[in-house]
Formats: sequence, C-alpha cells, structure tokens
Amino acid sequence: MQLNHQFDQIYQSPTVAVADRVLTLKASGRKIIPLHVGDPDFATPPSVMNAAINAMREGFTHYGPSRGNLDLRLAIASKLARGNNVSLNGAMPYDTEREILVTHGGVHAYYLAMQSILNPGDEVMIADPSWATHTNMVILLRGSVIHVPALVENDFIPLIEAWKNALTRKTRAIVINYPANPTGTYPSRQYFQQLMDFASENDLWIVSDEVYDNLYYNEQPVSAGVFPDAKDRTILVNSLSKTYAMTGWRVGYLAAPSRVIDNALKAGQNSITCVAPFVQKAAAFALNDEGVQTAAAEMRAVYAHRREIVMRVYRENKGSLVGVTPPMGAFYFFLDFREMKLTAQNICEQILDEMGVGLVPGSAFGKQGEGFVRMTIAASDSDVEAGIKAILDWAGRR
Amino acid sequence: MQLNHQFDQIYQSPTVAVADRVLTLKASGRKIIPLHVGDPDFATPPSVMNAAINAMREGFTHYGPSRGNLDLRLAIASKLARGNNVSLNGAMPYDTEREILVTHGGVHAYYLAMQSILNPGDEVMIADPSWATHTNMVILLRGSVIHVPALVENDFIPLIEAWKNALTRKTRAIVINYPANPTGTYPSRQYFQQLMDFASENDLWIVSDEVYDNLYYNEQPVSAGVFPDAKDRTILVNSLSKTYAMTGWRVGYLAAPSRVIDNALKAGQNSITCVAPFVQKAAAFALNDEGVQTAAAEMRAVYAHRREIVMRVYRENKGSLVGVTPPMGAFYFFLDFREMKLTAQNICEQILDEMGVGLVPGSAFGKQGEGFVRMTIAASDSDVEAGIKAILDWAGRR
Repeated sequence: MQLNHQFDQIYQSPTVAVADRVLTLKASGRKIIPLHVGDPDFATPPSVMNAAINAMREGFTHYGPSRGNLDLRLAIASKLARGNNVSLNGAMPYDTEREILVTHGGVHAYYLAMQSILNPGDEVMIADPSWATHTNMVILLRGSVIHVPALVENDFIPLIEAWKNALTRKTRAIVINYPANPTGTYPSRQYFQQLMDFASENDLWIVSDEVYDNLYYNEQPVSAGVFPDAKDRTILVNSLSKTYAMTGWRVGYLAAPSRVIDNALKAGQNSITCVAPFVQKAAAFALNDEGVQTAAAEMRAVYAHRREIVMRVYRENKGSLVGVTPPMGAFYFFLDFREMKLTAQNICEQILDEMGVGLVPGSAFGKQGEGFVRMTIAASDSDVEAGIKAILDWAGRR
Repeated sequence: MQLNHQFDQIYQSPTVAVADRVLTLKASGRKIIPLHVGDPDFATPPSVMNAAINAMREGFTHYGPSRGNLDLRLAIASKLARGNNVSLNGAMPYDTEREILVTHGGVHAYYLAMQSILNPGDEVMIADPSWATHTNMVILLRGSVIHVPALVENDFIPLIEAWKNALTRKTRAIVINYPANPTGTYPSRQYFQQLMDFASENDLWIVSDEVYDNLYYNEQPVSAGVFPDAKDRTILVNSLSKTYAMTGWRVGYLAAPSRVIDNALKAGQNSITCVAPFVQKAAAFALNDEGVQTAAAEMRAVYAHRREIVMRVYRENKGSLVGVTPPMGAFYFFLDFREMKLTAQNICEQILDEMGVGLVPGSAFGKQGEGFVRMTIAASDSDVEAGIKAILDWAGRR
C-alpha cells in the first residue's frame, strides 16, 4: 500500500540526530553539557502556572473556540500594538475577530500560514542558513523551496539583490525569521522596507517568524508588522515559548489579513480543533501581566550576561581557530569553524564524544551553515562557561 | 495574491453555525438548553488535574519528545491491549517505540494518519452520514471523498456491497468511526471481518476513529485493531476526550504500522513539535489509574441513565411524528423527523428559536442525515429531560 510520497523528501533533522546521540551517552552514565537545545533553562514563571491551574479548576478543560479565547486574542492584539510598535494612530491594528488566530505554538502558526496560502508547485524563498522546519513544511505542503544565500560576510542576511535573483514566476512567498535561528541576526528597518517594496512589486506574501522578537542585545528588532502599506501581504508568526520560557506549553499565534486567517481557521478546526483553554488562560496572563514582563526582561538580561561570558572566554583564548561573534539576538552563537576544514557534523560528533558538549552542526540549517556550529546560551551560566571553554580547548589541541 | 484554492471546497460546519446562533441568543439573555455540543458535561476527574499540576510543578513545561512521553506511550499500548482485546498471546501488540504516536487529540491523530498516506487525487471512502471533519481533512490533503450510503434501514452501517460498489482504481482508504458520530451505531465482529477481507483484497488502508470506544450500552464494540491479519493495513485513531471528559486537554493517539507512524512523526515534528508534556503526564495517569477507570465507568452509567430518560419521555409521547431510537453507543440520539417534510436545518432553527433547545441538523453529516437531527445526552439529566420534552412538544404542535 502506498504512502504519501512527499515524506520521502523530508529527512530526520540533524538536530534530532544529535539529541538522540546525547540521550544515548547520558543513558550510559556520561555527563553532557547540553548546548544543543533551543529551550530556555528557566522555569515558566510561577504566576503563569498558577493562571493555568486556576483556569483548570474553574473548568476550562472543555472545548474552547477554534479561533482562540477572546481574552487571549485581545492580549495578542495588545502585545502586537505594544511590543512591535505597530500601533497606528492609537488604534489597535489587528482585529481580534478577524485577523488573529491562536495556535499550538509558533511552529503550528507557521504551518497554518503556509497551508493557507500555498498551492502545489508554488515556490517559497527562504534564507540559507535557516531553521530546517521552515523548509520541511513547504515540502509537506507540496511547494518547493528556493534557498537564498545569506552569507556570513553580509551578516547572514540575504542581499536584496539575492532575493531578486532567486525570483521566478512561481514564487509566492518570502519566509523571514528575525532575530534568526541559528545566527541571531536581524536587519535594519531600511532593509526591511526594501524587502517589503520588493514583495509588493512582485505580489509576494511575507511570512515573518518572530518568535525571538523579545531576545535582542542591541536596538529592538523591527517587526514585519510595522509597515502599514505591507499589512495586506504580511503574515506574522509568533509564540510565547522563547520569551516566557513556555516551550512546553505549545501556544503561539498568527496575525494576518482576514482571508489568510479564514483559511487557517478552517485548517485548525479540521486538524486540531482548538488549543487547550486552560493553556490559553495562562498565555493571556503571561502576555498581560506586568510581573511576567519583568521576568521576561530578567531572562533577557541573563542571556546577555551569558553572551558576555562566552566573549570573555573567547578573549582569553586569543588566537583560537574558532571565530566567535556575539549574536545580535536570539540565544545562539553560530561559531565559525571553517578554518578547521572539517564538516560541521564531524566537528559536533568529535566535541560531543571527546568533550561531552552537545552542539548542532550548522549544516543542519543549509549549505551556508557548513563549517559553522550552533551553540545555545539557553543553559546555565556554568554550563555555558564550561561548554565554550571545552570547545575552544578542543579546537586548540588540533 | 493567491491563497490555497483547496479551502474553497471547505465550508463552515453547520455545527459551528448552530453554535454561533446559540451564542448570539445567549448573549441576548435567552436561556438555551445546549443539546448541540459533543462535549461531556462532566468535569475532568480531579486526580487527572492533579497529575497535570504536579507535572507542571516538576518542570514538565519544556519541549518533550515528538513521539510522546514514553510513559504515555506505554499507557496507550497497555490500554490497547486491555480495552480493545487486541492482546495476542499475552504480548502487547503495539510497539511503543515504533507504532504509537501521541497527538493533539483524536482530530489531529486522524489528520496525521490521512496526511501520512494520501497523495493528491487519492480517493477515500467514508460512510454517509459521518462527522464532516473526516471529509474536510481529505479535501485539505487534496484527496477526494466517496460517500458510501449508510441507510437508516441498515442501522446506519453501509452494506459490504455498498463499499464494493463505491470502489474505484483510485481508492486508497476506508474511514470508519464506530461507535459513530452522529448515529451511535457500530457493527458486529462478523461485519468487521468482511470489511477487513474487502480491504485486504483491494489493498486499502482502514482508518478507524474509535474515540467513542468506551461509550456503549450493549455489548462492547469491536476495535479494528483486533484483526491480526489486518494489522499492517489498520490505523487506529483514538483520544482521551470522550472517555475521560478531557475534550479541552487535546490529547489523543495514533496506533499504526511503523511506516505510517514514521511519516506521522515527521509531520508532527514539522507542524506542532510535541504535545505539552504536563498534559501527557495527565493523560498517562488517566489511562493507568484504576480510580479514573471507575470514574469513566460511572460517566458511562450516567449516559445510559439519560438514554433511558429520553426513551421514557418518548414513550409518554406515543404517536409523536418524531422517531426516537436508543443509540447503541456514543452520546447522541439521531432523531428521525423525516415525517415532518422539513429540512433538518429548518427544524433545528425553529426548535432553537421557539423552544430554546440547541441541536445539530443531520444534514451536517451528509445527504443520508437529511431529515434527522442530532441531540446530545452529554448534558445534565434535567437539560436532557427538558430538551426532549420541548422537542416532542414542538413536533406535536405542528
């Protein structure tokens, strides 16, 4: 009996392969420094947990609206107006009844976005390197992906010319993810405006995955939602996972033109029904509560501190073959091992086996990631310090 | 800019339309007896809630394995062996490492199952009447649906001949759902064996949605999982929602040949990542705990009692134009209004407006449902009694 052939084009992520190898080593009693996972080491703020527990006890354990609880949609609209500076003349720019959908995390928001717009054979442009899931979903949905080089010398952001060169008559959408996984990079407002103009000239959707929008170490990143003229072609994907240490809660959202949300809602009703209402109550609390915003700011400060730890250790290892550049945002370093002339996969396997540090090969994110290695700082200060020391020691001994 | 054209073929469910009308009436201050929703009126057992709360506090608020927590997969395998009598020679027949996937409710299990097997243009056979979501998903996935008549005179189960007559060279799968929504019907083991033989002769997948498997009022329904020769073509879809009053928890599972699970896992990783780990802990507790099984049995006894209430009121209204047959399973009556020569939609609208009782038109479930109306008994005893009285009163006055 046949299966869906599309899955033949989707391979197990090298990230998962690394995670499996780490689990095997741990099971054999080995202590591993886990710098391979993109999951905050912080606990979810207790007040958010309490909001979920109270909601559970109040009976929010039954089906809820597929579009999402109204209070959560209001909290999302308010967050978009507040956090992304998309407020126009004081009005909330996203209509809670028509332009917002609550989803099972950012991944699901992205999946529903792509499902809402893509027909078979449509092309989607995605920067290389990028998170592999962005590409996999397009394949699942029978589209095809054009990878647009985002070179290290251009701060891992594709030149506007590169997007233009990749365009064909079948191109329907540009996927962006700033601050980026794995590089932490994000562009200027000027660049964004140029990208929006290009999208407008060529009738392209902009799908903007902004799950790291609260994790930045210099000026605040620009959201794709701030360009009023582009709102009718812009689909925002976001999540509470990274900002509030809520990865396991699986709650995110889509903010988009109503005709996109109409499709995404149909897709959601016919694939997941709704997000657990008590989880939605916790999410609304997290977005609205002042104390939780403070907790989120404190987490960001801790990531900033760990970023400094890495840079200090690096400065103490002057002359290392490894290139270490502080990320602009997100919680990853994209370490440059190109001088070692080994594959990123090989480097990660050796560092895991010899030094007990879990990392992800940059090649998992595309051709342009080859020679680079992703190291998370979403781990304890001591793990981050011991990890980067071990990595530089390993490189120094070769 | 274009959208995915496939959504043009998916209409808002009449179930949702009814629910919206009910909300509007309620908002205007009207008291409505809610016999339109398929959501238990019981609270989730408190011990299940406590399992979730403890897990949350223990830190199960981060990403978990995409396949599902191992303890939940073990609980599922054990449930399948226990509840469905699929135990063969004492061995657990489903391999927790390869043949089970935890999903975001039964709907999601079904979606992943269909996504794993269907290629564009593949045909899927589904009984009429059936839950509309079964059809919608096939359309979302670019397959096409052959509706096979399940006539009232055959207890709403398609004759084996009817499946055979509907078969074409493009047919890839048969979807079944027993006990059925909306009719509560389920077939004998002998019928099931014939269906399995037919599937085997024609190389078809059997996708069996068994979310109502614990809700039956006569002999225990047969699971599609009990036919050893058919295991390699059988995909079981199940959920904790109906059995344990856990609709809002969004947790279910798929049990299937490993090559189906391999695809479903890839799809899950690239669309929802994982189900919330603290929800999974609650689910494992619900499946394993003796007290929770007792609670589930008590709920079933209450549904059986309400079924008797409806039949008693019906007997007190001898001569009613409405045909009332006690369901074999699930928690719905499929009331027969055909003698009234009105559309089911019209009947539901009139009963809602005049009597304040929310119902779902049978036509929402397909052509064969026209003239019928679905009434849930997943509502309080007093609502069920008042509801059926109001319905029969309304019919009697016409």
